[in-house]
Order: sequence, then structure tokens, then C-alpha cells
Amino acid sequence: MSQPLDIGIAGAGLAGSLLASLLAQDGHRVTVFERREDPRRSGFIGGRSINLALSTRGLEALTAIGLQEKIMKDVVPMRGRIMHDPDGRTSFHPYSVAPSDAINSVSRGELNIELLKAADEHENVTLHFEKPIVDVDFASGFIKVESTEGNEPESIKFDLIVGADGAYSTMRNAMQCYPQRAGFGFSQTFISHSYKELVIPPLSDGSHALDPNALHIWPRGASMMIALPNADGSFTCTLFWPREGQGTSFESLAAADDVTAYIGQIYPDAVNLMPTLEEDARNNPVSPLVMISCDHWYCGEHSVLLGDAAHAIVPFFGQGMNSAFQDCMVLREHLRTHDNNVRRAIVTFSEQQKPNGDAISKLSLDNFLIMRDRVSSRWFRLSQHVEKWLHRLMPSRVQPVYNLVSFTTTPYQEIVKRQARRRQSIKSLLAVLISLAALVIAFFIGTFT
Amino acid sequence: MSQPLDIGIAGAGLAGSLLASLLAQDGHRVTVFERREDPRRSGFIGGRSINLALSTRGLEALTAIGLQEKIMKDVVPMRGRIMHDPDGRTSFHPYSVAPSDAINSVSRGELNIELLKAADEHENVTLHFEKPIVDVDFASGFIKVESTEGNEPESIKFDLIVGADGAYSTMRNAMQCYPQRAGFGFSQTFISHSYKELVIPPLSDGSHALDPNALHIWPRGASMMIALPNADGSFTCTLFWPREGQGTSFESLAAADDVTAYIGQIYPDAVNLMPTLEEDARNNPVSPLVMISCDHWYCGEHSVLLGDAAHAIVPFFGQGMNSAFQDCMVLREHLRTHDNNVRRAIVTFSEQQKPNGDAISKLSLDNFLIMRDRVSSRWFRLSQHVEKWLHRLMPSRVQPVYNLVSFTTTPYQEIVKRQARRRQSIKSLLAVLISLAALVIAFFIGTFT
Repeated sequence: MSQPLDIGIAGAGLAGSLLASLLAQDGHRVTVFERREDPRRSGFIGGRSINLALSTRGLEALTAIGLQEKIMKDVVPMRGRIMHDPDGRTSFHPYSVAPSDAINSVSRGELNIELLKAADEHENVTLHFEKPIVDVDFASGFIKVESTEGNEPESIKFDLIVGADGAYSTMRNAMQCYPQRAGFGFSQTFISHSYKELVIPPLSDGSHALDPNALHIWPRGASMMIALPNADGSFTCTLFWPREGQGTSFESLAAADDVTAYIGQIYPDAVNLMPTLEEDARNNPVSPLVMISCDHWYCGEHSVLLGDAAHAIVPFFGQGMNSAFQDCMVLREHLRTHDNNVRRAIVTFSEQQKPNGDAISKLSLDNFLIMRDRVSSRWFRLSQHVEKWLHRLMPSRVQPVYNLVSFTTTPYQEIVKRQARRRQSIKSLLAVLISLAALVIAFFIGTFT
Repeated sequence: MSQPLDIGIAGAGLAGSLLASLLAQDGHRVTVFERREDPRRSGFIGGRSINLALSTRGLEALTAIGLQEKIMKDVVPMRGRIMHDPDGRTSFHPYSVAPSDAINSVSRGELNIELLKAADEHENVTLHFEKPIVDVDFASGFIKVESTEGNEPESIKFDLIVGADGAYSTMRNAMQCYPQRAGFGFSQTFISHSYKELVIPPLSDGSHALDPNALHIWPRGASMMIALPNADGSFTCTLFWPREGQGTSFESLAAADDVTAYIGQIYPDAVNLMPTLEEDARNNPVSPLVMISCDHWYCGEHSVLLGDAAHAIVPFFGQGMNSAFQDCMVLREHLRTHDNNVRRAIVTFSEQQKPNGDAISKLSLDNFLIMRDRVSSRWFRLSQHVEKWLHRLMPSRVQPVYNLVSFTTTPYQEIVKRQARRRQSIKSLLAVLISLAALVIAFFIGTFT
């Protein structure tokens, strides 16, 4: 049995706190450094959306640290999409033919607190709050953390340093600057759409104002709204709109005299359920949507990124947290496989997961187009019906992409490959059909002229 | 006449020191902050290649500050390419039909020193060395610079702050982190090739060992070498090779027993001219080639990037310095046009120059393929001959891309558009010819069957 490692984790968000427990289970000594206050003391203050969709990849990781049952008590399962058309009519579209397949709306704040409690129960885990990592020496494995007394930053040596510090990762930023010759290719891309959250509160009897067991979508081309149920009877609604522009945009909204009328003409059946619409729309921030991509996720001998820090994605597949949790599981697996040889583990981890990060990034952007436009198109629904019908006939051979992403732990990369193969098969089939038709026409022309 | 501005410039490299003179001419108070030592005192220590190709855009800027004549005294004009084939045979390919069109090999270090001297002659320019900008408050226009006494950083307020601090710009890095919602899309891409410099010294009589009035190229597919003449009779050779890999690569070179034999089998006619080949090849660094792209070049009310900081490009068109100098000229123009309204000037500057930065980035990468593969192909040479012939017939209507880039100040964006239009015309012509041919064939088939 190999020696346990000294492991430092940047960030005590969802991925960082989960990873602490996973690594502590293997006997490693884990220290977590977080910039924010302890949410167990201060209440959760996040810069990010307040509810998330927990699906199979995330659940697998929660099972690994024995937290699944506890978390699942407070989630709201969503078994499909309810589409709201401009006239207020709704239609339900299940995610899967299996009634047990659901994605689960969960509170980001409460989940984070439970993960921190779980990590803190390990005596080989130390959690530091209001103590961010400010720099890393990637060659030696020393990190610098802000000292609480306002003195010089403290230097601490670790065998393994994990950057789980989110889309605006300090650790990745340090990688980008160090050393210049390392050739760390990197991009951050902001899509044209941003988001703003609104609220549908519970009815007077505490129940949900809309069907709680679905993800609600108001697909309106470039100006989509979605709503996810919360366990307290409320819904969190999110506007995904262009930041600027003449049409529906946050810029136009800010200039509008009557905010309720402005939003009401787009989602007429929703605004009546939003008593605080006026102030929410005025006061809640407009937040950008960023995609992060790095050539590789490791740097030097000791350091590796995962989750949003390595591959922040747009939220349209509900896979940000789920993919980050899968990263944590895979990283642990590589440490085990390589007998705690850190360099080998982080390089092979990066080689395995980077293509999966790229794949879920692509799928998430694709799903934006599906949600905002194509779910309301007859042709898309028809093709979905065909796919579901084939799935019923050959459940293991034909699985819709949505199901592979949400209800299996199949590597994302594999899903994209299967999708490409399926599209290619359809194209080839069409080409054969068209060629046959052309031959038949040519035959008739030849015969009758 | 509007009030002169307080302007801070990050970086006293080529662009920063030129810009200081240009802005001082308009009466602005300019302060330059440079991380490195003063090269006038310490000798030039650059991280970058030691000679550059000065062409029309660069010369226009030097003329604007009255330095052209002085600099042109010490350059070596290159009127075309000399290709070295694997058997040691050479051929000369002029850049232009006009014998006066040449690109000029110039020493980076000496040019930088002359630019600093010129800036220092303005009493409204202050140069600080070993005093880098460490942070910028983009909202207020305050910068923080490292204090020489090792105390807290100093804060200084400027009306305009220009980041001319190179491909690994501190200022851009600050933009990237501030504020997260600004949506500053950014990418750094390292191409698979890196570079290493070698030397061909002067002959014993002080003359050049190869024809000095040309850029020498040893095109060998993925393992190209070039050589630029220096005024002292030497040549600086640059290997552009893949970093890693089984074939010719810096990785293979590092593992080679006999470095001279390794390089000699690729460029047999060059190695005999390199007495220090063994030690140069072992000791000179392998440097990466990075491309930088930013969604926009300004940030907040006061700050703007230019040159490599905004759009570092690969060196295969010799336009890095030339494009940076053009940026400086254009920025000054926008300050003049907008009557020193900083915000308006930096926004319109960015809107004008960002597409030009993208264009020269693309052209430079394209030229890599041309230099390493296509200059040695008969087809490419033929098409070049045709283009030159058309150029002779209609000199103003048909100008080769190389000439537009190197011997005019036409915006790069315009050049890319013209190139696309020319390709489209050829495609359309071909399509018409093919259709005609098809019609003729159909006619004959119809007639004879």
C-alpha cells in the first residue's frame, strides 16, 4: 500500500468539498482553502444560480461518500419538460420512457453545506475559509495562501494541489502565467446571452404554482425562460436573453418603462405568478455565461484543475456540477491506479477527462439551441418520438443523447461519438435512397423518351 | 484645442517607446513603466528574437517621429527570398516587381534603444525602468506600480492607460480578471511549432557568408529554417520545428548524440557556415509561438491594449512590430479625431483595429504554410508568376497579398477581404467554365444519341 499524500484543494464549493471527502476516504491528508466565508456559519452567498439539476453522474459521486440518501430527501424530481407556448398552452414531454429516470432540482447552498459537513467529519480533512490560495509554485508544489493577520502570505508544500476554484479560477490564472514556455493554451468565451433570475413563490397553501415534477420552458427563440422547482414550493425562473440589442434583451429591459408589461408580453402565463417581478427584474444581476477551455488540465509535477476551473460550460444541459463530480471520481481513480504517483495520475487524468470536458461543453451549447428553438418545432418533436420508439424497440442500442448524458455515466466523449455515428448512418441511408430514386427516374426517362 | 492628457504606458518595448514619442508630440504628459532594466544602460536583454523585418507600416511610424533616416542607415534590405533546396541549390524569388520594394532586417535591441532615446528627448515623457505596473483599477484609471523601496505599491491616476506590455501582458491579465461580468473573451493559442536561434557568423573578411539582400529559407515541410542578415555581417538563423514528436523535433534534437549531424542532414549547405552550431543548438532556448486574441481591446473608461498585448501573432509574415506600430498611429489618430475624449477614442480604436489584428493573425498563420511548404512547390511559384504578371499589367488593380501587407499601409482587414474576393472570382469563373463544358457535352450527347 502506497503512502498517503498531502493534498491541497483550492475552493470549497461543490467539487472541492466533495473531493475532500473522496480523497480522505483513501487516507490522504486533505487541506481545503476557500476565499469565501464558511456558509455553515454565514449562510450561503454564491455568485451562481440557486438551484441545480442533479442527475446520475452527480448521484454516483454522492453515493460514494454516503450522502445520496440524505440529499435525495430534499430534491424535487423532474420527469420531463413542460413547454409553455405564447398563448399560455402547455404540453408535457417526458425525458425518458423509464418513469424512474428523472433529473433532480436541488438547492446549491444546501448541497454545499451538506458536502462541507461530510468533509469535516473526516479527521484528515482541514477546512480553511476566508483564506484563498493566491499563488502556486508549480515546480515545487508550494502554494501561497493569504495570511489572516495581513502579514506576508504563508507558503505550504503539498504533494498534490487541485484547483476546484471555479470558472474564474485563481489557480488556472497562475498556470496561464507560469512559466511562459509551458505553452498553456487557454480560452474564455462569453456567449451573447446572459441570465437573470426571477421568482415564482409558493401558493398561499404552500404548494407549487406550476406542476413541480417538470422543468418548465418558455421557448421563444433568442429569449428563453426556464423554471426549476424548489422544495419550499417556489420556482426559480431564469431568463436567458441577449445582453444587448434592439429586440428582447437585458439592455432593452433596463430601458423599459413598464418591466411587467415588457416581460408579460413574452411569457403571459408566468408574470401573474410573480408578485415580486418588478423588483426582481430591476435588482437581480445580469450574469454572463462563460465557457472555459484549457489545452491540458495539469501543470508541472503536482497541480491539476477540475470542474468549472478546467472546463466551465453553459448551463443548458444541467451538467456543470454533474461533470465536476465525475471529474472528482475519475481523479481519485487515477490516483488509485497509479499508486499515488501524482505526476502520472494528473497527466492521465487530464488526458482522459479533457476530451470529456470538450464534449459536454459542445453538448451544452447544442442543447441551448434545442431548448430555445427546437423543442417547440414539430420536426424536432417528431424526431424525438422516432428516437424514443427505436429506444423502446432496442433499449440498449438506441439511447437518446439526453438520456445518455443525464441517466448514465457514459463518458461524454463517447456520447458525442455515438451521436456523430448515428447522424452519419442517417446521412448514408438518405444518400442511398436518393441515389436509388435518381436511378429509377433515369430508368423511366430512358424507357419513355 | 482640447486639454492634453495624463497618459500611462505599460511597457517600454518597441510599441511603448514609439507611442510615448507620438503622444508627446501632441502635448500629452506621458509616463512609461517598464519591468526590465534600461537597455541604454544595461545592454538589450530581450526574451524575443534579435532581428526583425521592418516594412512600410513600421517605416511610416518611424517617419512620424523623425527617426526613419537614422534607422534605415543600419538596416539590411531584403529584396526577395532565397530558397535552399536539400541538395544545396538556391533560387532567388523577388518580393516585388518594383526593385525599391524591400523589407529591412533591423536589430530589435538597437531599434528599441533609438526609440527610447527619441522618447526621452521630449520633456513631457518620463521613463521608469524596473518599475512594472502590477494592477489597474479600470473604473477609476488608477494604476499600481511596484515601489522601488519594496514598500506598498504606489497608486497613480491617469486619463489614459495603454497596455503595450507584450504577449504576456500584465495589463491584459488584469482585464481578464476584472470585473468578471464584463465578458472579456480571450484566448491564447500555442502552435505546435516552437523556435530556436542559431548563428552564421561573418566571413574572415567581415562580409556575409550568404547573399545579404535576401531572406533565406530552407523549406522542409514541418521543419523549416530561415536566416535574416545582420548589419555586422552575420546571419541569425531560426529553426521552426515541432516541439515534440518522432520526426524532426526539438525533442528529438535534444536526444540526438550528434547535433551537427542531425541538423546537417536537413540543411547540408548551412551547417558548414555555423562554427558554434553545437553549443548554440544545445544552449539556446526553445521558445514557444503564441497567438493572442481578445474580444475587445479596451476596458472601462481609461484603458486600452495594443500590439502583442492585444493580438500577438506568429512571426511568419514579419508583421508583429509593423502592426504594433500601425496600432500606435491609429490610436493617436482616434485621440485627435475625438478631441481627447478617451472613452470614445479607445472604443472606436478597438472597433477599428481588432478586425485588423484578427486579419494579420490569420495572414501570418497562412504564411507559415506558404513558407514551409508552398514556396517550394511549382504550382505555388506558377501562381505567383501569374499574379506578378497580372500585377505588371494592372499594377493598382492586382497587387499580391504579400505586397499589400509589406509595401502598403492598407488595413489588413481590407487585404483579407480582397483576397477572399479574388478567390471567389476564380471559383466563379471555374464554375462557369465547368457549366459550359457540361452544356457542350450534353449537347453532343443529345445530338448523337
